[in-house]
Amino acid sequence: MYRLKVVVIGAGIGGLTAAIALSQSGYEVEVYERAQELRPRGAGISLWSNGVKVLNRFGLGEKIAAIGGQMDAMRYLSSQGEILNHICLLPLIEEVGQRPYPVARADLQAMLLDAYPGKVKLGHRCIAVEEHGEQVTATFENGHQATGDLLIAADGVRSTLRQYVLDREVQPTYRDYVNWNGLVEVDEALTPANTWTIYVGNHQRASMMPVGGNRLYFFFDVPLPSGTSAPPELIRSELVEHFQGWADPVQALIQRLDPEKTNRLEISDVGPVDRMVRGRVALLGDAAHATCPDLGQGGCQALEDVYMLNHFLLTTNISVEDALKRYESSRKDRTSSIVKKARNRAEVIHGKDPEITAQWYDQLRQEAPSAVTGAIAKTILTGPLQ
Amino acid sequence: MYRLKVVVIGAGIGGLTAAIALSQSGYEVEVYERAQELRPRGAGISLWSNGVKVLNRFGLGEKIAAIGGQMDAMRYLSSQGEILNHICLLPLIEEVGQRPYPVARADLQAMLLDAYPGKVKLGHRCIAVEEHGEQVTATFENGHQATGDLLIAADGVRSTLRQYVLDREVQPTYRDYVNWNGLVEVDEALTPANTWTIYVGNHQRASMMPVGGNRLYFFFDVPLPSGTSAPPELIRSELVEHFQGWADPVQALIQRLDPEKTNRLEISDVGPVDRMVRGRVALLGDAAHATCPDLGQGGCQALEDVYMLNHFLLTTNISVEDALKRYESSRKDRTSSIVKKARNRAEVIHGKDPEITAQWYDQLRQEAPSAVTGAIAKTILTGPLQ
Repeated sequence: MYRLKVVVIGAGIGGLTAAIALSQSGYEVEVYERAQELRPRGAGISLWSNGVKVLNRFGLGEKIAAIGGQMDAMRYLSSQGEILNHICLLPLIEEVGQRPYPVARADLQAMLLDAYPGKVKLGHRCIAVEEHGEQVTATFENGHQATGDLLIAADGVRSTLRQYVLDREVQPTYRDYVNWNGLVEVDEALTPANTWTIYVGNHQRASMMPVGGNRLYFFFDVPLPSGTSAPPELIRSELVEHFQGWADPVQALIQRLDPEKTNRLEISDVGPVDRMVRGRVALLGDAAHATCPDLGQGGCQALEDVYMLNHFLLTTNISVEDALKRYESSRKDRTSSIVKKARNRAEVIHGKDPEITAQWYDQLRQEAPSAVTGAIAKTILTGPLQ
Repeated sequence: MYRLKVVVIGAGIGGLTAAIALSQSGYEVEVYERAQELRPRGAGISLWSNGVKVLNRFGLGEKIAAIGGQMDAMRYLSSQGEILNHICLLPLIEEVGQRPYPVARADLQAMLLDAYPGKVKLGHRCIAVEEHGEQVTATFENGHQATGDLLIAADGVRSTLRQYVLDREVQPTYRDYVNWNGLVEVDEALTPANTWTIYVGNHQRASMMPVGGNRLYFFFDVPLPSGTSAPPELIRSELVEHFQGWADPVQALIQRLDPEKTNRLEISDVGPVDRMVRGRVALLGDAAHATCPDLGQGGCQALEDVYMLNHFLLTTNISVEDALKRYESSRKDRTSSIVKKARNRAEVIHGKDPEITAQWYDQLRQEAPSAVTGAIAKTILTGPLQ
């Protein structure tokens, strides 16, 4: 029996989960990562139920449950601390069949690394891929080469292999806001421990959600022109200024956070792109469809990609290229729609049109919780996993 | 980690594939079969690509390919031997991503038995199931009892557990034709070896399709009232009479077949039923939706059932009952539609309304091959596996 060999470029959530899934399918998998050390770009990530179901499918259900936060409700508050809406998530969980898990990215990455039976080859920066006959070869900056039957380009928002697949350059586009994020210890003075709390006002957000290990994943969003920056020692004062006058828990959070461990990111997205596959090379995750984090679907879409790629490699048998084409056509519309939906939401949240943002604040106050959970359920259930 | 225990009643295609899939998922599986010896009811079965994909998903792809027939084309002929239509199946295979495999049922059952890591308990006739708390117990006629977290009732068209799930009696309904079937050696005088050949006329059919091992799976269909029967020694003369005047290959087939090994079945179907699940008990395959063989989808639907049942048990985590409910709602409409479509086709083929059957003969002569493969592809791709 011929054993398919898969070269995976990138050891983020998508790359590692692909490596786990494809190893379980009996394929030979090698994972290459350009960084010398694995360091996630953000502190936390919300994995909604569609992403969790993919992890469940590959036997990681108990592991993600162990590191995920128990998020039973979400609530929106005004910057002044007035509760706009309180949404119990249990009806959502019942509808979709699986609870979401907000999780610290470092925990998720460690869990995936542990579950991958191979060893990630760090410090391998892929600089070229070449297809020849029935094989594809990746060349790395350090001179190493890796050859397989297919190559998965899971090299993230700043993908270097995207250009090979698309045959043109597509750079991420800045979406006009900065996101600060990190972890703090759970404290009821900040938010009830089982609740995702989001303060909104002035086109900004301050958010806290429970992740495992008695911690909250927090983030702040502020619309800013591109190119601003701040060294760690200025992060606190920057946030104090942007969130002046906001409610006490927001102030407490700003004082509580560790500036040295707080990430400051300009949020960009990619696409929608018109291809995800060229020959034996498949883009996966952010490399194809980096998504504004405003829907919580970026990581989930990478996981759905893994599920479908593995599905077609296992269940169809015309050729590797044919399976990749089926993967592409199963994923292109879904991910394009999520990229656009998240971008639209980012614009609504961050005041691209201030009138629409004002309407959104009103809507939050009036919306039935079932409308909110219904919309989230729809996003989850229109994916490939019922 | 708690290991789910599954009791499977019935060691047909559905029951055995469920046992294989659920064992792979890490569950404890016990399979009980009422027969003392496993003997398939028919000689062959056509597994269209949707069924084959399920086998592929559970690692049985090379095994089914090894025992399946190479069917590259199908052709319809009149009873006189005039070719009405010749349909190349390669465009279908390209569209759906997997070739169909006609296969001898005994080979399929042996392959599945071999792949199931446990041992089927033969001679166990289930006479009752009882749910108590978080468990379900099956009682067998021989006094044995088996308790698990869920029970899969894959006990076929004459299911005894159907009544428990539906809470009313639903008997199979005779669909007004008799089917004779068996295996003969490949012979170009009967049909080209890579071609499914179907003679139609007088509301009857004579069909031959390649299965593995250099054999043809043949069948004859004749509309007859219920209750007819014939001992083996009369089967040949019965067929000679019904197919008097048909083309030479049909006559040759009648002379070639082994009457002792030819099955004679009254074709019945079941449903559509309004439930597939009660508590921790799930109907699977023919027990829920025995289907006229006129679409070649009976076995495939049992395999799709397995795929979805396993999917929900693995990916959702509210409760066993909840996963079974999701299974039911994912399968009820699909299988109902297939049961009705196959029944309708059986009626068209067998002259329920002679005018419609005459129109069908005309249509066969005029229909574009792409319309035929398109309809088959649609049946395949509207299932759960893209």
